[in-house]
Amino acid sequence: MPNILKDKNFLTSLIRERKTVLTIGLDTDVQKLPSILNGDVLAFNKAIIDATRETCVAYKPNFAFYESLGPKGWDILKETIDYIGEQHLIIADAKRGDIGNTSAMYSDGILQKMNCDAITVNPYMGKDCVTPFYTDGKWVIILALTSNEGSHDFQQLPLQNGKKLYQEVMSKSATWGDAGNTMFVLGATHPSEVLECRNLFPDHFFLIPGIGAQGGDIDAICGAGLNSEGGLLINASRSILYASKESDFAEKARQEADMVNQNIRPHLEYKMNLV
Amino acid sequence: MPNILKDKNFLTSLIRERKTVLTIGLDTDVQKLPSILNGDVLAFNKAIIDATRETCVAYKPNFAFYESLGPKGWDILKETIDYIGEQHLIIADAKRGDIGNTSAMYSDGILQKMNCDAITVNPYMGKDCVTPFYTDGKWVIILALTSNEGSHDFQQLPLQNGKKLYQEVMSKSATWGDAGNTMFVLGATHPSEVLECRNLFPDHFFLIPGIGAQGGDIDAICGAGLNSEGGLLINASRSILYASKESDFAEKARQEADMVNQNIRPHLEYKMNLV
Repeated sequence: MPNILKDKNFLTSLIRERKTVLTIGLDTDVQKLPSILNGDVLAFNKAIIDATRETCVAYKPNFAFYESLGPKGWDILKETIDYIGEQHLIIADAKRGDIGNTSAMYSDGILQKMNCDAITVNPYMGKDCVTPFYTDGKWVIILALTSNEGSHDFQQLPLQNGKKLYQEVMSKSATWGDAGNTMFVLGATHPSEVLECRNLFPDHFFLIPGIGAQGGDIDAICGAGLNSEGGLLINASRSILYASKESDFAEKARQEADMVNQNIRPHLEYKMNLV
Repeated sequence: MPNILKDKNFLTSLIRERKTVLTIGLDTDVQKLPSILNGDVLAFNKAIIDATRETCVAYKPNFAFYESLGPKGWDILKETIDYIGEQHLIIADAKRGDIGNTSAMYSDGILQKMNCDAITVNPYMGKDCVTPFYTDGKWVIILALTSNEGSHDFQQLPLQNGKKLYQEVMSKSATWGDAGNTMFVLGATHPSEVLECRNLFPDHFFLIPGIGAQGGDIDAICGAGLNSEGGLLINASRSILYASKESDFAEKARQEADMVNQNIRPHLEYKMNLV
């Protein structure tokens, strides 16, 4: 079937229309489902998606949670992605990256066969591992500075050239694509680094995990990172998916998403001149 | 079913018995199959495994090649892994790594549900992304210095502390496990670095990709990296899998594996005192 082009104009249009940059991470853990669902991951995903379509501009299925189910997990993942449809950016949170011929296979599987619009990519193996993901109309989202404690182990180490590793990753990998097909992952737990990166990369979108369960501050991130096109995708997963373990889980997920959006909206109206 | 423990003693025993450290990479590309197979990836894998069981100590399915087939690829992967059985180390070449709760899901899917014995892990996100893969009796294989051109982009950059990034990755991550459950990936295209790493890490196994199609020199790698327990797993993929595109493909794969082993064997007999 023909797909619509989910480029930067598409994304900015969604952001203007829905007045949010919220991305909902589909980190669906079969152990955490409401008991009424009897472990039906796909039914959970569909209910969450139905309840939250108007509250977000992107969904981000986390591949690990589906792979944990064994081979049937990929079937559920495919049905979930198909169910999301054409009115959201679909981000494969897969953290892939390997030598060129192998990255090309991941790209074919995840961006073509699974029909995702974007994929998170690990830059450790360098340029020839990242560039195979640049295919027509798709987004490459490069890990720069992640939200976790382990980001101190290597990403923040100072290099002899004076930059930190994540800064070198961004400046080098920014030349492999452009602001129309490349995003960077910057953890919500690092707001001052988000500001620094916004100054260096005024036009790139940043994917921001780490609010909610991981403790990042939405106001600080919005102040530091939003631009006139939006410029951020702020992800929340656990706080929305598991807002309730009862039969009202989808409604509570919607309310939680609305609450996040109440925080985001005033910043967005100011930066995008929406009022 | 109960599994046997595929620990370091198991691995060294296999190496002594088969007099090789050859690992066969199951990078099965549906576009490159002999035409008589009509695109049957599983039949190809079974024929290759049947022909080469005695020539190698490990098989390394490359997950990307199965994911490129969409959801059915994981079914083929599972059947391939089951078919290999208990007399080889089974390495998931999956290059995974994410924040702790997500790495735990990858670990559950790939090491438990798919029943692989080892997994390649990308260290860029740091300790809490790597440690969830340490589960009883399984191996964690950390990317250090890969075989590709892109290894120059970040892995070989000098840090302010005087080390190169891959050296920092190895010295730091070596403390997260031990030589009985941790290996490092070192590309065959870097023999002098393999020697340097052998001196620093005398007891760790190194997984060595990059011979054959990628141009690494077996003699140089064996001289630099073998130790009295074996200490290396030397991977070949394309040169063995696609030695012939005719109906004799499995026999030719076996011959190619035998040729690699003729190169490895004298080094191994000397280092392991096998003669």
